[in-house]
Formats: sequence, C-alpha cells, structure tokens
Amino acid sequence: MRLDTIAIVGVGLIGGSIGLAAKKRGLAERIVGVGRDLAHLEQARRLGAIDHGTLDLAEAVRGAVLVIFCTPVDRIAAQVRDAIACTSKPAIFTDAGSTKRAVVAAVEALRLGRVRFVGGHPLAGSEKKGVEHANADLFVNRLTILTQTEATRKTALTAVKLFWQELGARVEIMTPDEHDRAVGLTSHLPHLVAAALAGILPHEWHDLAASGFRDTTRIAGGDPEVWTPIFQQNRTAVLAALEQLAERLHQFRQALTQEDVARVDQLLTQGKRMRDALGS
Amino acid sequence: MRLDTIAIVGVGLIGGSIGLAAKKRGLAERIVGVGRDLAHLEQARRLGAIDHGTLDLAEAVRGAVLVIFCTPVDRIAAQVRDAIACTSKPAIFTDAGSTKRAVVAAVEALRLGRVRFVGGHPLAGSEKKGVEHANADLFVNRLTILTQTEATRKTALTAVKLFWQELGARVEIMTPDEHDRAVGLTSHLPHLVAAALAGILPHEWHDLAASGFRDTTRIAGGDPEVWTPIFQQNRTAVLAALEQLAERLHQFRQALTQEDVARVDQLLTQGKRMRDALGS
Repeated sequence: MRLDTIAIVGVGLIGGSIGLAAKKRGLAERIVGVGRDLAHLEQARRLGAIDHGTLDLAEAVRGAVLVIFCTPVDRIAAQVRDAIACTSKPAIFTDAGSTKRAVVAAVEALRLGRVRFVGGHPLAGSEKKGVEHANADLFVNRLTILTQTEATRKTALTAVKLFWQELGARVEIMTPDEHDRAVGLTSHLPHLVAAALAGILPHEWHDLAASGFRDTTRIAGGDPEVWTPIFQQNRTAVLAALEQLAERLHQFRQALTQEDVARVDQLLTQGKRMRDALGS
Repeated sequence: MRLDTIAIVGVGLIGGSIGLAAKKRGLAERIVGVGRDLAHLEQARRLGAIDHGTLDLAEAVRGAVLVIFCTPVDRIAAQVRDAIACTSKPAIFTDAGSTKRAVVAAVEALRLGRVRFVGGHPLAGSEKKGVEHANADLFVNRLTILTQTEATRKTALTAVKLFWQELGARVEIMTPDEHDRAVGLTSHLPHLVAAALAGILPHEWHDLAASGFRDTTRIAGGDPEVWTPIFQQNRTAVLAALEQLAERLHQFRQALTQEDVARVDQLLTQGKRMRDALGS
C-alpha cells in the first residue's frame, strides 16, 4: 500500500501516532497535519509525524486521498462537513473518535459528494496527551474498530481496513451501535469510575494512594475536553453500563453488610477470573 | 543496623521482598523463612530472599530477634500466638497485613510476655503473587505505616521504624483505626471496584478491553485468599468508602441523565485534578 497525500486533522497522541506509523511503514508520499497551533504542528513535524503542518483545513485536504479526523468527537462531523467542500478529487475520510453512533449519523446526514466516509476507532488511547507521546507502534496488535452501515461503501471500508492493518492493527467491523454499547462498558465506564474514585480521595490521604489506587484511577488523567463530549454522545450506553456496575457494587455492599464472607470471596474470585483471562 | 536472626513468616511477594531487601542492605546475620511448602521455601532460598526455610514456626522463631508476619490478615494473630510460645528471648514481632484494627486488637489481647508487637503495613503490594515477583527495592520511597496504640512500646516502634527506613521506606505512624479508614478508601475500595468492573465484562467484549480497562481492573487479579479476609476485617471502613463512591457515581448518573454537560465536565475535571496531583 502506497498512498499519495494523507491529511491528519488533529495531530495529538493518536493523530501523531498514525503519522509516525504511516511514515515508518512508507504508506504515504506525504503527510499533512492540520491543527490550531503552529508551534504544536512544528513539533509534530520535527518528531517526524507529519511532513507539513497547516492551520488551514482546506489547504491540507485539497490534494489528500485519505483524511483522518483525530479530534474530539464533538468536532468531527463539522470538520468533515468543512473538509468536503475543499476536496478536489475523490477521497476517503475516516476518523479515530471514541464514539461512533453520533459521529457516523452526523456525517452520513451530510452531502458527501465524492467523499467516502468510514467510521473508525483505534482502541489505543492513553491518559497522555499530545504528539510528544505519539509512537509509531502504538497500534501494533491493538484493535481498531471500523463501522459499517447501510451507507458504507465496501471499497472504502476495505481500503481503511487495509490501512489500519498496515499500521499493525487488528481490525474488527461493527455497527456504530454495537461499538458504542461495547466501549460504553469497556472504555467509557472505566473512565467514569476512575474519575469518581480519584475525585473522592481526600487530600490528607494522598500519600496513602499506592500503586493499586494509581492503576485504578490512571485514566482519570485524560483530558475532559476529549472525554466530556464522549460521555455526552454515548450517555445511553454509559448509563446502561453504570447500572450494571451499580448492581454489582450493590452485591458487594450486601455481602459486606451481611458479613457473608463466602459471597465476598465468590465476587472477588469471579472478578479475578475475568481479569486473569484478559492477561496483563 | 545489624540484627542477628530475622524470621519471616510467609515468604511471598512481600515477605520475599523484605528478605531480599534486608540481605541486600546487610541488615541481618541470618534470615529464616517459614512457610507451608518446602519447594516454595527452597525457591525463596535460591532467589536469596532467605538463608534457610522451614515448615516449623517454632524452629524459625526460636532464636529470632525480629519476626515479621507476612501472611493473610486472618492468620496473623493466631501465628503470633503460636510464635510467642516458641520465643526463647525478648523479640520484636511485626506484621505486613493490610488491615490493622482487627490484627492489632487480636494480638494485644494475647499474653505477649517478652514479645513486643508493632503493627505494620508496607503500601507496596501488587496483584502479583509469590516470591518470584519479590524485589529488593520494592519498598524504596514507598510508604510503610506502623501503628501506635496505648500498648505500643516506644522502643519497639522506633526499632521497627528504623528497620523499614533501612529498607528504603518512608514510615508514617497512625492509629489502627486511622489506618483502616484511610486504606479502606485508598486500597480496599479500589480493589472492590476493580473486581466489580472486571466481573461485569461480558466474554464477547474481552477483545475490546484495551489499556484503560486493563489499568482500571489490574488489581482485581489479586488473590482472594488474601483479599477476602481484608474485606472481612475492614468491612465498616470499606462500606463507608463505598457509600462515598456510590454518591459520586450517582452525581455522574444524574448529570448524564439530565444531559448536564457542564456538570459532567466539572466532575471529570475534578477527578483529573486529583489524579494529576498524585503523579504517575
């Protein structure tokens, strides 16, 4: 696979890693990064994540055959809309947003013209932010989910799938709804729980928060500018997942209240079995 | 500091790390390990965590000036009782259990004779188990809590404090109650939450559990044989901490239900601020 120009809109941890990964594997002639801050784009260029940075979406998108939107989920659809107006030839657009139902629906409601859109989500985030944490192998053996709807063009889906596979990712195809329900529990709920747990730590006990607390709350360090829109767009699935968690926490509470040691042991053992099955 | 014989009862991750750390720093003439499995003790000896292993508590304790109990919290008091009967000279006993109120109260109810007991808890656990994960620097710059009650002898407390400091740890002194309330929130609650979250992950979504889910649930891999007694002994503090968490989760639920985006952002921002203050 060798593409001509790729445009990456939003060159942070994910966008920067896509750039580094694509360059390392020789997937593109040229990678243009679009951002809101020239110093930041210059840093991305110095790090080798992009060949050229610009504040001008039109300039970046004009000659691109593949445009990847790596911005917060509440900005993607509007940027896609703006970018469509700037394309001069057929192009594939995809994104890396953590929600898919709202993003894909909003994009599919646009007049796409010769643009083909495929929703995407590489499951390779981090609480870290910025291109300085980008990594050419971030996606290796990680899962990237691509969405398929009635409007999805098979050739575009195949091309985006191949692109992610070339970056080293495993690719799974789901509907936007399936995606959102799953990550509502596997990603968004853990974030909410981590934020809740971190939020109730009294200042005077900071020193007692050892590796267990730190691991469990690590993702709470994620940027609210990224995460608030995720919760906004996926509130239904998150609320359903939260309900499940609340029920399980209630079972723990009941077992503790009733001093039902066997039940506590059973709940812990079940959690351990599930966690062990995941591996490190 | 140079002690004669130290006995370590329970040579797993913590006991083994104490042995390795003490030997590395030349703190003892001889370290005897007590366990329930000779092959396991032989492994500890080969790894350099102990000089000699035995299944016989009496043999190990007989000549020891310092005995450190690193077994699950529901076994410590009975082992201390048995060990007292075997001491042939004044000795200091301490432990590494994750609860202190029940352990210290049970031990202080014993006829200690010439034994001095100081409750201890190095905040340096892990979901890993066994002497094969032990590490001579596990306690360096980590906090070890020692307890002080009306029955605590100052000289014994000072000696145990010095011992932990020699292993590289920072030492803080608290009452057993203060300790249990604090770790109920900073350690036991995160474990419960991790187990709950891991326990509700449906098998078909395993593949979608990326680094966020893995970090947040990592400690759920801990051994229920260790953790069930911790929850049993510290149920009051854990229930209180769980109540606080439930209240915070309720605030998230309410904000999501009411589509109160500003409130979601505020809750996430607060969690991030607290988490950022902890450092990595």
